[in-house]
Amino acid sequence: MKRLGQHILVEFSDCDRDLLNDLASIESILTEAARQARATIVDTVFHHYNPHGLSGVVVIAESHISIHTWPEYGYAAADVFTCGDQVDPWKACKYLKDKLRCGNMSTREIPRGIPGHKDEVLPHKPLDDQMTSGQLA
Amino acid sequence: MKRLGQHILVEFSDCDRDLLNDLASIESILTEAARQARATIVDTVFHHYNPHGLSGVVVIAESHISIHTWPEYGYAAADVFTCGDQVDPWKACKYLKDKLRCGNMSTREIPRGIPGHKDEVLPHKPLDDQMTSGQLA
Repeated sequence: MKRLGQHILVEFSDCDRDLLNDLASIESILTEAARQARATIVDTVFHHYNPHGLSGVVVIAESHISIHTWPEYGYAAADVFTCGDQVDPWKACKYLKDKLRCGNMSTREIPRGIPGHKDEVLPHKPLDDQMTSGQLA
Repeated sequence: MKRLGQHILVEFSDCDRDLLNDLASIESILTEAARQARATIVDTVFHHYNPHGLSGVVVIAESHISIHTWPEYGYAAADVFTCGDQVDPWKACKYLKDKLRCGNMSTREIPRGIPGHKDEVLPHKPLDDQMTSGQLA
């Protein structure tokens, strides 16, 4: 694979159930998790569902961090997708585990990039002079 | 695992490079992909990077669909995370492959939910009477 990034899927179980239903707290925790990973926050979107549960996504220049919560199960599904070597996605995972008062964190890390037989790492943000818009076509 | 949903990670390579850098087109394609899957769109966020590439997320009541594009490589990384049996995430994947004029789609489907020895499927949206807010604590 021509690798561009890593995608960590995280199951947070045995969490604080009230917290998983608290939109302001989850928004604060997820954006701070992005900062802990040294990611560059681009935009955020959060939504609370009726009667409970919420979704949140922090778009970062290095991809995204998302969370979906099921307070009724004390469970949250998160994913931390990062590119480049300037960020540490595991810092975001550890921060989330701590702040969600999570009793059980399970993670799977999946490499992302262009499938192929030869393994290499592609630069996430090529320099401008490597490409001009005219070369896109 | 007490399964709540499925998370499909998709590598789209050999795509139309100009299209991968066209914010309006990608926004239209990603939101229509959510509709094709019969998902309920909650919110969207899209961002174009300088000098090229973009990120987009469609938050759906059933979780999210995201895309991050590298026009310089003709590549886009997407993920389609859905819960419940009312949506068909594969319809979103197939729609995206077609619309991105993608020559090579590679997918990995990962079950999401609460880790455990016993396999079962949990309801995504429990009925209101299964829980009151007082039971969250």
